[in-house]
Amino acid sequence: MIVMSASILVVALWSAIAYLSGETSELASMRALMVTVGVGSAVGVGMWFGVSSAKATIGRREAILLVSLSWFVGAGLAALPFRLWPVFAGGLSDHPFSGFVSCYFESMSGLTTTGASVLTEISALPRSLLLWRALTHWLGGLGIVVLFVAVLPMLGVGGKRLFRVEAAGPSPDGVTPRIQDTARVLWLIYLGLTVAEILALRVVGMGWFDAVCHTFATLATGGFSTHNASLAGFRSVGIDLVVLFFMVLAGVNFGLYFHVLKRRWRTVWTDVELRCYLGIIVVGSAVVVWSIHGQAYVTITGEVAPQTIGSTFQYGVFQVVSVQTTTGYCTADFNQWPVLAKIVMLLLMCVGGCAGSTGGGFKVVRCIMAAKIIMAEIYRSFRPQVVRPIKIGNVTVDADLRSSTMIYLFTLVLLTFLGAAGLMVLEREAGMDATTATTASLAMINNIGPGLGRVGAANNYGWLTDGSKILTCVLMALGRLEVFSVIVLFHPQFWRKD
Amino acid sequence: MIVMSASILVVALWSAIAYLSGETSELASMRALMVTVGVGSAVGVGMWFGVSSAKATIGRREAILLVSLSWFVGAGLAALPFRLWPVFAGGLSDHPFSGFVSCYFESMSGLTTTGASVLTEISALPRSLLLWRALTHWLGGLGIVVLFVAVLPMLGVGGKRLFRVEAAGPSPDGVTPRIQDTARVLWLIYLGLTVAEILALRVVGMGWFDAVCHTFATLATGGFSTHNASLAGFRSVGIDLVVLFFMVLAGVNFGLYFHVLKRRWRTVWTDVELRCYLGIIVVGSAVVVWSIHGQAYVTITGEVAPQTIGSTFQYGVFQVVSVQTTTGYCTADFNQWPVLAKIVMLLLMCVGGCAGSTGGGFKVVRCIMAAKIIMAEIYRSFRPQVVRPIKIGNVTVDADLRSSTMIYLFTLVLLTFLGAAGLMVLEREAGMDATTATTASLAMINNIGPGLGRVGAANNYGWLTDGSKILTCVLMALGRLEVFSVIVLFHPQFWRKD
Repeated sequence: MIVMSASILVVALWSAIAYLSGETSELASMRALMVTVGVGSAVGVGMWFGVSSAKATIGRREAILLVSLSWFVGAGLAALPFRLWPVFAGGLSDHPFSGFVSCYFESMSGLTTTGASVLTEISALPRSLLLWRALTHWLGGLGIVVLFVAVLPMLGVGGKRLFRVEAAGPSPDGVTPRIQDTARVLWLIYLGLTVAEILALRVVGMGWFDAVCHTFATLATGGFSTHNASLAGFRSVGIDLVVLFFMVLAGVNFGLYFHVLKRRWRTVWTDVELRCYLGIIVVGSAVVVWSIHGQAYVTITGEVAPQTIGSTFQYGVFQVVSVQTTTGYCTADFNQWPVLAKIVMLLLMCVGGCAGSTGGGFKVVRCIMAAKIIMAEIYRSFRPQVVRPIKIGNVTVDADLRSSTMIYLFTLVLLTFLGAAGLMVLEREAGMDATTATTASLAMINNIGPGLGRVGAANNYGWLTDGSKILTCVLMALGRLEVFSVIVLFHPQFWRKD
Repeated sequence: MIVMSASILVVALWSAIAYLSGETSELASMRALMVTVGVGSAVGVGMWFGVSSAKATIGRREAILLVSLSWFVGAGLAALPFRLWPVFAGGLSDHPFSGFVSCYFESMSGLTTTGASVLTEISALPRSLLLWRALTHWLGGLGIVVLFVAVLPMLGVGGKRLFRVEAAGPSPDGVTPRIQDTARVLWLIYLGLTVAEILALRVVGMGWFDAVCHTFATLATGGFSTHNASLAGFRSVGIDLVVLFFMVLAGVNFGLYFHVLKRRWRTVWTDVELRCYLGIIVVGSAVVVWSIHGQAYVTITGEVAPQTIGSTFQYGVFQVVSVQTTTGYCTADFNQWPVLAKIVMLLLMCVGGCAGSTGGGFKVVRCIMAAKIIMAEIYRSFRPQVVRPIKIGNVTVDADLRSSTMIYLFTLVLLTFLGAAGLMVLEREAGMDATTATTASLAMINNIGPGLGRVGAANNYGWLTDGSKILTCVLMALGRLEVFSVIVLFHPQFWRKD
């Protein structure tokens, strides 16, 4: 609460400066931000004093509860500026932000780095709200990396079991054993990458404001843009390439950057997950480029994409990386691509980024494990007497981790199906086709943003009913927090006293 | 080969009698059947002598290979009468059976007890071919039950691991320890149920021929009918009820009938899988009946179903049981049902029948295990120090079985997705929507028959291209033989010498 209020305060001050410099449109958003700062800091400070006087010890359950609830409550606070803005601005009763659920969707999508939006007219928002919107991505991304690399391994939820198999992760080598140290280094790495991308975008010709906002969205693998036509509006190959490069970096396990800082290049280069991650991007891009070349489809600016090799590479590779890293930036409407390309995109959506990155999805390391586990099971069915250990890099995957991985993946698939079913039932009045519902559910759980059909690249989520928006918010949080740290809240024994 | 040739010989003799009694339309089919008997017995006897003189011992790999290949080769022989019939009849170049791939699809669908057809004009076939078509179901169902309850447990493929947890299965109690004894008892049970259903259908007014054919299709949870309008054409609640009753029986673990024969009613009634199976049918029916009541949809005869409570129950419960047991008989076009009912139908399609029944799908016992495993994993995430065993009935599910179950389920989901993707790519010229492709893939792997969309209850699979038909044949075999016994054939080390 306090960290978020402080962040909003920064945006509010920036907004105030803009207003004093003559931008009258900033008045309403400045007020909205200021009120949010007041509410957030009041609640935060109140809780601080309330908690510090209590003699409570934080156990495992309390920690899980804290992490999960902080996401849901945080999204509520983050949604306030969006909701208050039309109140102060007036005459905006038709605006998507005039409903709290839509604002909550937007902020949850921001914090979970999903990047799905309810807005059609994005550039019509005051710049301070656009900045706050992008900042939710950045905060969420930072939170996730710290959570995964530093906090969850301590709790043993998802992260720990994953890091046990990652040779390059920080925990096994004990680079920085204490949680605060780890968090501090991660924060510096994240900040360093942020500065680097802002400067790089500035060099290729983007304005400061857009560079900051798009950097926030790229490094968090979020996908919010400041323009209706997203990055396609800039019509710049240079910008596309810079964003592409940083999307790839954002999808890498941030633990690896520890090793980069220590110049342990060999450790980085021999990392199995990194190699697979890059390999999937190359193979996926090749198939998509081959599939879409010579096909007619429009870019997000509404023009037919030129059928040159250069253009095919520009749109094909960008979309592949955008979807695999679960960023969800769109320059081309891949909803219009041939079936094969769409299937590859769906597969990449499921794979996602590396564990310990800001990306969502199954995570590359889990896919590697699943593939090895399935192959081992096939082998075992005709050679049951031969026991061969499953290894990733130098680390053996034990029976416990094997079953956890398969349970996790199956649960994710089950939740995707149930999410799609829920959306179809909730939207039964207006009707929602199965493709839209399934890919929407997938895009929410894997924190991507765009799906196919009516939630495709050229569409948004504004048309969903409030019920569906609440469901998608739960799906986003489930995916972002590795399912089990949210799902425990629905287990009756979680709430029972010992 | 020899058993199948003998079965075809019976049908051919029946056809000859019909021809001599004046049914001239039987001439071509009689010839087709006779030629098949010749081919089949020649190959079978040839192989018999070839094999009996060889000094080969059958190991695990050879046994798996035998089981898997016998299905693929058997379907080839079973398809011959279909393919030869238009050759002998003449003037049928437009008939679906004028292509071998379509005939292979039909016989594979029969033997795997899927019940999907390429035929639009079913009743236009000679009666001997209709009988043979139904008999493929019956032989396939018998084969599966014997395979699962008697053969696979010995090989440790799928079945064994399942039966380890089934308190009521024959193996743990050692009812009939030797494989031949078990197979013999199962064969008698299957025969007894067959006679019982034929008589019951006769009592409610069906003719002998239809009674025999529909009995074969019911007990095998197949779904082939002798009429274009399937069972709806009889317009008889009595027939619907008899078929309903025997579909439920066919979906039960045949191992339980051992206990029924021994009058061990307590063992039967306390069987966890049986209780869940019946529970799912009741709950599924309740939701579907609630969802479709008062809705407009047509029956397979093309009339609007009357919106009375009786009619809703008749169609609702029948379709639920038909789909859950993976029989696939259709009396109502559930493709027109509301979203909620369709989602429930899809869920039931996945669940399927009990292990050791003729039904396909995930199998009820695996669903129970998956639910318990997921709940245990959630519990473990906030109470990692507490180790609680997972039990089904009195049997503890060990770590090995836990991971096998999750691997199996995830692989099945993955194959369904890949199957759907393959169908969409193969049918990209004409275009196939995602709903049709996904439910077709699901209906094939789970051996159900009808899906949704263009493979819905009122449609068939005749419009697929040959490539798609071959893919669906592989999917049917994969699902029927519990995936891993087929998938091993694609593992390079399966073929490598020790």
